[in-house]
Amino acid sequence: MSNKNDVELILVGNELLRGDRKDSHLEYLGQRLLEIGVRLDHAHVVGDERERIASLIAARVALSRVLVVAGGLGPTHDDVTRDAVADGLGVPLEFDENEWANIQAMFVRCGWKISESNRRQAFFPMGAVPVSNPRGTAPGFVVTSGDSMIAVLPGPPREFRAMLDGDILPQIRALFERPPLVQQTYRTVGVGESKLTPLIESLLARFQDLTVASLPHVAGVDLLVRAKRNVQTAGLDDFDLELRSALGHRIYATGDTSLEAVIGGLLAKRGDTLAVAESLTGGLLGKRLTDVSGSSQYLLADVVAYSNESKTKFLGVKEKTLVGHGAVSKPVCQEMADGIRVATGATYGIATTGIAGPTGGTDEKPVGLCYYGLSWAGGGDVHKRIFPGERDAVRQRVVWASLFLLYERLCGSLCQGRG
Amino acid sequence: MSNKNDVELILVGNELLRGDRKDSHLEYLGQRLLEIGVRLDHAHVVGDERERIASLIAARVALSRVLVVAGGLGPTHDDVTRDAVADGLGVPLEFDENEWANIQAMFVRCGWKISESNRRQAFFPMGAVPVSNPRGTAPGFVVTSGDSMIAVLPGPPREFRAMLDGDILPQIRALFERPPLVQQTYRTVGVGESKLTPLIESLLARFQDLTVASLPHVAGVDLLVRAKRNVQTAGLDDFDLELRSALGHRIYATGDTSLEAVIGGLLAKRGDTLAVAESLTGGLLGKRLTDVSGSSQYLLADVVAYSNESKTKFLGVKEKTLVGHGAVSKPVCQEMADGIRVATGATYGIATTGIAGPTGGTDEKPVGLCYYGLSWAGGGDVHKRIFPGERDAVRQRVVWASLFLLYERLCGSLCQGRG
Repeated sequence: MSNKNDVELILVGNELLRGDRKDSHLEYLGQRLLEIGVRLDHAHVVGDERERIASLIAARVALSRVLVVAGGLGPTHDDVTRDAVADGLGVPLEFDENEWANIQAMFVRCGWKISESNRRQAFFPMGAVPVSNPRGTAPGFVVTSGDSMIAVLPGPPREFRAMLDGDILPQIRALFERPPLVQQTYRTVGVGESKLTPLIESLLARFQDLTVASLPHVAGVDLLVRAKRNVQTAGLDDFDLELRSALGHRIYATGDTSLEAVIGGLLAKRGDTLAVAESLTGGLLGKRLTDVSGSSQYLLADVVAYSNESKTKFLGVKEKTLVGHGAVSKPVCQEMADGIRVATGATYGIATTGIAGPTGGTDEKPVGLCYYGLSWAGGGDVHKRIFPGERDAVRQRVVWASLFLLYERLCGSLCQGRG
Repeated sequence: MSNKNDVELILVGNELLRGDRKDSHLEYLGQRLLEIGVRLDHAHVVGDERERIASLIAARVALSRVLVVAGGLGPTHDDVTRDAVADGLGVPLEFDENEWANIQAMFVRCGWKISESNRRQAFFPMGAVPVSNPRGTAPGFVVTSGDSMIAVLPGPPREFRAMLDGDILPQIRALFERPPLVQQTYRTVGVGESKLTPLIESLLARFQDLTVASLPHVAGVDLLVRAKRNVQTAGLDDFDLELRSALGHRIYATGDTSLEAVIGGLLAKRGDTLAVAESLTGGLLGKRLTDVSGSSQYLLADVVAYSNESKTKFLGVKEKTLVGHGAVSKPVCQEMADGIRVATGATYGIATTGIAGPTGGTDEKPVGLCYYGLSWAGGGDVHKRIFPGERDAVRQRVVWASLFLLYERLCGSLCQGRG
């Protein structure tokens, strides 16, 4: 067995080093490799400089079984990756008539004008196998050097991902022949660090073949549970049982399912409906809920009532309540939730009001003060919080808090006794 | 003058290589350095392995004036950056009584429990100057080696950025003493590639000390105009005049001002108000408009009327129109915009309706079909588009299109003859 690195990533592009464009390949490749039990050991970002890229390729090909190189395959004079890879491996570039015909056909199909500079894209390092690009004009290529494989792909994420998934990952999988990684993501909400940390520690003491990474988000923690390297029977099934019995419905999903999708599923299952009344969140709560395809089944309406007049007109909030308590108050929040529920005939009304900042705060009602609550036939529940952070953070936090409140209510009425 | 690289970035963390966490330091550092005329020449991502980090530090310190190292300064046994830096520079770690007192005081202030493992955070490579962390417990440090400077900072973005901006960038600026880079970002909307590309090419032919990067977004192109390296009088003022005379109000802002902020400014200036009626965009249009602090001045309400009933109830859309044309139709979109304007007494009503997908499309009304439009006293204007892409992309595109429509109307009535 080789003691080389598994895979290294080389990202090419001045725009990455100048902060003009955010990279997304590192995260994507890391995740994809993990799924096939292969490690990404190192990543590099370099500018569009032929000599620099060439010497990096030459140095790293000796250290790694696979190099994945992204970017710099376009038709302009800044695109030097193909030349640099050839230099780094010490082989000449060769013109590929077949690929040139493919590129020309692609341009004709799309009705684009081809220029002489596109010919550059049909040159490959000697011995390379072209990789066709289903979403763009620049083909990639794979070339071997000793026992190492170098896969070179275009930079645009749609093209990179399609070619990586379609051509390159199967080759990497075949090269290493590793069993797939045992892993699971648990998405939790409403469990504090003070409960989570000792729970995880005590579980890990008994499941020694597993590792757990805690990834906290705005209002919740994702737990990434993985088998240690090369361990296949790590007891994930038993771990799963124990974690679920400890956390119950506070694990709202596994994988990448969102809380709003879970809420949607619970509503749809019972034939219940929801209506939203927002103030400070300005549409963000509705946006989150309607991110779910099919949400029109249960989401009847969302009224963003920024002004007092619209709170009265659309939601039936009483002028007396607005004057007596102010728009950011518990009674107004409850009347907003009640009002939207009654106006739409929904099973549940949900409402937010507060001060997102940076302006609008007072000593009595500081920036970050929020009320969020529910209404249902025969009852209601409004909570008060002062959230830290800037405008966007406050809005994100109160949306999470209100979704959590609704989730708890739906679980309480659906699955009594859990959690 | 040294022929070393200006700055290299070393990101430490298994979570970056496994795709558990997205990096944001590369983009941030690249932008900040550019502002002070300094280049980020190379970036590396490595796992939490002491020897690997140490040998990388040893190799790169010989090649670069500045190394910025981020991550791995926490109190756990996975946090090996301080040890690795000391190894790489060939110096021992030393305990700093002052910093240990600071760390303990921080814990007391925040009411946290301190553990013996936090003592690790008070060790620094010999000769290092600690950098205090205003937003967390882990101090950073700066250490010099030959004519190179190594700045080591904690990984969490809030901490990294505060310490970079507060302590490290001023030191880098002093080290290089470069004049600030001449640059400007122009944000355009509604200008096609076919107009933009030849315009930029003809301008660049005359302004040879400038470079322009085109960064296309969902519905618009940002133009990043920069002086070539070390050129200080590149004619940016004249370029600015010519670009503005060619594009007029289609340049809606410079820098990072958003279109919704510009729209808000135009509305506020005239004392005009706006009300929103959304269907497929589900709150996203309202969310964008209320991202702007102070938007409560001019944004009266946003009704997300997902169901036909709520379109009738809140917006006064006629049942006859819904039955005759369907909810996704030009007449319904106009009635939505008219309805929200009349209901709120706003100067302008703005509305969206359409099919975001992936479900809900038919042969006659495919996924991506959208109507968006405006209403004002005495008039209205609704447009139809079929947008490509997935659910989120369709929703983003129609929000941009509707904002652009409003922007054009506000400019038309405010600045006749421009553009």
